[in-house]
Amino acid sequence: MSLEPVLARIDQDIEAATERLKALLRIPSISTDPAYKDDCDAAAEWLVDDLKTIGFDASKRVTPGHPMVVGHAGEGRAHLMFYGHYDVQPVDPLELWDRDPFDPEVQDTSRGRVIRGRGASDDKGQLMTFVEACRAWKAVHGRLPARITMFFEGEEESGSPSLVPFMKENAKELDADVALICDTGLFGDNTPAIVTMLRGLLGEEMTITGPSKDLHSGMYGGIGMNPIRVLARIIAALHDSTGRITVPGFYDGVPELSPELAAQWDGLGFDEGAFLGEVGLGQPAGETGRSGLEMIWSRPTCEVNGIIGGYTGDGFKTVLPAQATAKISFRLVGTQDPHKIRENFRAYVTSMLPPDCSVSFKAHGAGPASEMSVDDPAFEKARLALSDEWPNPAAYIGCGGSIPIAGYFKDILDTDAMLIGFGKDDDQIHSPNEKYDLESFHKGIRSWARILDALS
Amino acid sequence: MSLEPVLARIDQDIEAATERLKALLRIPSISTDPAYKDDCDAAAEWLVDDLKTIGFDASKRVTPGHPMVVGHAGEGRAHLMFYGHYDVQPVDPLELWDRDPFDPEVQDTSRGRVIRGRGASDDKGQLMTFVEACRAWKAVHGRLPARITMFFEGEEESGSPSLVPFMKENAKELDADVALICDTGLFGDNTPAIVTMLRGLLGEEMTITGPSKDLHSGMYGGIGMNPIRVLARIIAALHDSTGRITVPGFYDGVPELSPELAAQWDGLGFDEGAFLGEVGLGQPAGETGRSGLEMIWSRPTCEVNGIIGGYTGDGFKTVLPAQATAKISFRLVGTQDPHKIRENFRAYVTSMLPPDCSVSFKAHGAGPASEMSVDDPAFEKARLALSDEWPNPAAYIGCGGSIPIAGYFKDILDTDAMLIGFGKDDDQIHSPNEKYDLESFHKGIRSWARILDALS
Repeated sequence: MSLEPVLARIDQDIEAATERLKALLRIPSISTDPAYKDDCDAAAEWLVDDLKTIGFDASKRVTPGHPMVVGHAGEGRAHLMFYGHYDVQPVDPLELWDRDPFDPEVQDTSRGRVIRGRGASDDKGQLMTFVEACRAWKAVHGRLPARITMFFEGEEESGSPSLVPFMKENAKELDADVALICDTGLFGDNTPAIVTMLRGLLGEEMTITGPSKDLHSGMYGGIGMNPIRVLARIIAALHDSTGRITVPGFYDGVPELSPELAAQWDGLGFDEGAFLGEVGLGQPAGETGRSGLEMIWSRPTCEVNGIIGGYTGDGFKTVLPAQATAKISFRLVGTQDPHKIRENFRAYVTSMLPPDCSVSFKAHGAGPASEMSVDDPAFEKARLALSDEWPNPAAYIGCGGSIPIAGYFKDILDTDAMLIGFGKDDDQIHSPNEKYDLESFHKGIRSWARILDALS
Repeated sequence: MSLEPVLARIDQDIEAATERLKALLRIPSISTDPAYKDDCDAAAEWLVDDLKTIGFDASKRVTPGHPMVVGHAGEGRAHLMFYGHYDVQPVDPLELWDRDPFDPEVQDTSRGRVIRGRGASDDKGQLMTFVEACRAWKAVHGRLPARITMFFEGEEESGSPSLVPFMKENAKELDADVALICDTGLFGDNTPAIVTMLRGLLGEEMTITGPSKDLHSGMYGGIGMNPIRVLARIIAALHDSTGRITVPGFYDGVPELSPELAAQWDGLGFDEGAFLGEVGLGQPAGETGRSGLEMIWSRPTCEVNGIIGGYTGDGFKTVLPAQATAKISFRLVGTQDPHKIRENFRAYVTSMLPPDCSVSFKAHGAGPASEMSVDDPAFEKARLALSDEWPNPAAYIGCGGSIPIAGYFKDILDTDAMLIGFGKDDDQIHSPNEKYDLESFHKGIRSWARILDALS
């Protein structure tokens, strides 16, 4: 089957593809907030219906959380799996959005045309690049170039609690030669990339309790334990003055970058100043003595993602609160064990508690880092196919974000995961005014059409 | 004019007095939240109407914030001023209240009968003790025993921004021999007290800004500056390991307790364990080497009253927030200068900022500490009158809370302030389920009747 008419078909159909993406973006499938449960279900339903129009035997699969979508189609020696997620991040602070996050719009910007809306880039737009590539193959040749299994989840933004049990229960059905994942970015506007190193993620929430109720800071200030102060002291103690994380045993399993990879990354010409300048920053804040790409791709982190305690409304309230809470996440690399680190973190925090304070923890997901073996010839085939579509040759890179699915494919299904995505640094994923470049969308679809050709 | 029939009248009228207090408590006069502006006005109106029924020439006085209530009545050599505040604290967390905070109810508890509702103790119930004492004098004798000026404000819980300008503009009208203030507590169930030392209060709000927008902690975690971590580090650095506050110059003007007062306070038999045990604590958390009463009454403090940043909803969001905010209050003693400390605090915080961070401050009121001169014979007359009403003799004590009005009376009007109140430690002021003991209310009214007799 020839590739050229498929690419032509993609070009002709791009307006209709954009409309389909807008329809999916209109569904507010925020997985982390129980109020949007029905919307998550509706997004899954929408995808099942759409896959059926391309000939997939697709269905929604019930889980204790939001449903999975699984669909099969095509024949051939090669069995390719594609993974994406249909759930999106919350939209607060809503007042910083220029428009309704769930009323997507194509906009002309100084940097090109974009489609704006929550999930445009992460991950609905990316997910649809692969679906549209399949649609074009099917439309032109009447069938897909390989046996393809679609696998979409709806809990990626809330720690994927149902994913591992589902993969284990359905291991036979999900078994494939290679897993394709579209949830990452280009290296630069003109340089596509295959991610071969992914940081893991560990989420923890801790609540410090001091007095049994909120107190008047006039009556109890000084003599009474203030849990906000205790929480601040614990957070401050999680890093030393060089930016290293102080949780005992935290660096067990953190490898040094190989000289080869270090040299390759140096060659990418990463513009640290531009990367930080884009978001109003000027100086790298991580561990001293590490390069920017190391900080983002190959070093572990500990960040506070949220904190709250006491009176936070307008004006002032002289209260000593009973409780204060922080949400903490760790990005993990190498063979760092998230469960061991969770245990060490909890013991470490507990050891820092003063008298009269207690702490409770809530777990928010734990996934190890993963590193792909690029010895599999499929990686080089895909890299060359990508290089055909874009101005610059494709690179093997790392990724600061955590896509634990890659590790699960390896651990549970013994399938290599190939992470290819078309997002850009300014896509504002997880932030107000998220967008996806229409060029990413269009060339992304074309890229997948080429990769399907190369791997079939 | 004789005192005994006045006391008898108070006893007969106590049910009706309780109903009047409940009517005032039903008005949700939360001064710190602009949504309750009309309710603050309604509370002032209610008081004007009530004062008129006792023969006061009372009126609401417009200010840039909530109105003042001023009323005059009576004749005689002695001119007594009474100050109270009709505004109340916010009620959150509302879910911790056993009932609607603004639907007051008389309840039988294991420790006696109480009236429960926001403001029952702070300060509507206390304010009404004096009003009811005047009502009884007027009812029995047809006139008040002295010339009396009522002066109520509605911004005490939000830093009293209009108070000083109003006192300055109306200094002549408000001039009196002594100012009586009912916003403090008993020392114990049976021991009334006159507060002669009051801590001052300085309120500050600081917002740390890092990146220009919320960032994805996968993409920017490590390399990007996290303002929550910066805020936590700054808060942690505000105290040293002995509990002393590290703001430069903070202890300028903090006196050591005189041996006489130290001995008197030791004699009060303060039960630190019981005081802390009441609120689920066991160990004093303030400066090492200071007694419990010192920590509460005569040492300055720095407390965090609220903190917020990043994602604080259900679930988890891997965000590096653009901003994090904390509300900080300082309790001041001796001659500490709140304006100087505000300046030093801001410079100190700014000096701790890492690159790429900025800070903005919002001022939330500044009042110095005050100490009364008990040489004025009115103090001893009042102490003896109080001692006649209660089982134990009255004591001169300190107060951890801040009632800047006392200092203003001295500074602006050159009038000594006498702080006499009937609150209890378990009144839960500023907390859910605030209450006022009916015994405090009843004996409080009788106490004022006696004091009016003694001072007239």
